This record gives sequence, structure tokens and C-alpha cells, in this order.
Amino acid sequence: MKLQIFVTLKPGVLDPQGRAIHHALGSLGFAGVDDVRAGKVFEMEVADNTDDAAIDAMCRQLLANTVIENYRVVKA
Amino acid sequence: MKLQIFVTLKPGVLDPQGRAIHHALGSLGFAGVDDVRAGKVFEMEVADNTDDAAIDAMCRQLLANTVIENYRVVKA
Repeated sequence: MKLQIFVTLKPGVLDPQGRAIHHALGSLGFAGVDDVRAGKVFEMEVADNTDDAAIDAMCRQLLANTVIENYRVVKA
Repeated sequence: MKLQIFVTLKPGVLDPQGRAIHHALGSLGFAGVDDVRAGKVFEMEVADNTDDAAIDAMCRQLLANTVIENYRVVKA
């Protein structure tokens, strides 16, 4: 089973990487960019019998810092 | 207009971050994980009249290293 796990900063958490990208896009002449937020995506191949609880545990224990990050799991 | 831009390593390019995550999941007792690839996602808010050519240029000039990375744009 293929999984895509998206990890993004929670709203309100300062995102220096996104800010830097926003600034750099402006410097490169791209107008009209209002906001940039940077996040991570993990594409995983797991056994078909992996249950949702295990996937959730992987996210909470390793992939995301749930204090400042949200995660979203998409099964492909 | 909201954009999501996914940047992932091309197949065959060594992914040390993905390897480390794969190894760490095994150490934590999660069995059945076959492969992990790490990538980036950028969530952007751009002006509605931003054309595809400009978005493509942003990806090629700044967001992705097209020598080793693929990118995919999703308009939300």
C-alpha cells in the first residue's frame, strides 16, 4: 500500500523557510505571491495489512512534531 | 489562488533522509515498511492571474533542483 504523509506547520507557527522562499521569489521578479508555507511529504510503501492506528503512531512518534506540525495521511 | 507544489527526488537518486526514516521506523518496531522517500511541499497563495508559465518558472528557478528533483503543481 502506498502512503503519502503530508507534514505542515500549524497555522500561526513561524515558518522561516517559507518566509525566505517568499522573499527570494520577490527578488527574482515574481509578483503576486502572497504567502508561502513550507512542509514535508513522505511517500511510503507499507504492507497492505498496516492499520490506521500504526500509521498514526508512525506520524506521532517520528514523522511529525505534533506540538507545531499537523499531518495528513493519503492512501494511494 | 492556492497552489501546492510537491518536490520529490527523481527515482534512482539516493535519499539519505528517507533511508534514515525507514531505519528509524524499524527501530521503533514498525514492521512492514518497505520504502520511504522524503520530499517537500510548498503551499503558496498567489494572485489569481498568475499563469502556468510563471508557476513553472518559480519551480525551475527556485523551488526544485531539476537535475535531481521532480515537481508537481496542484491548484486548489
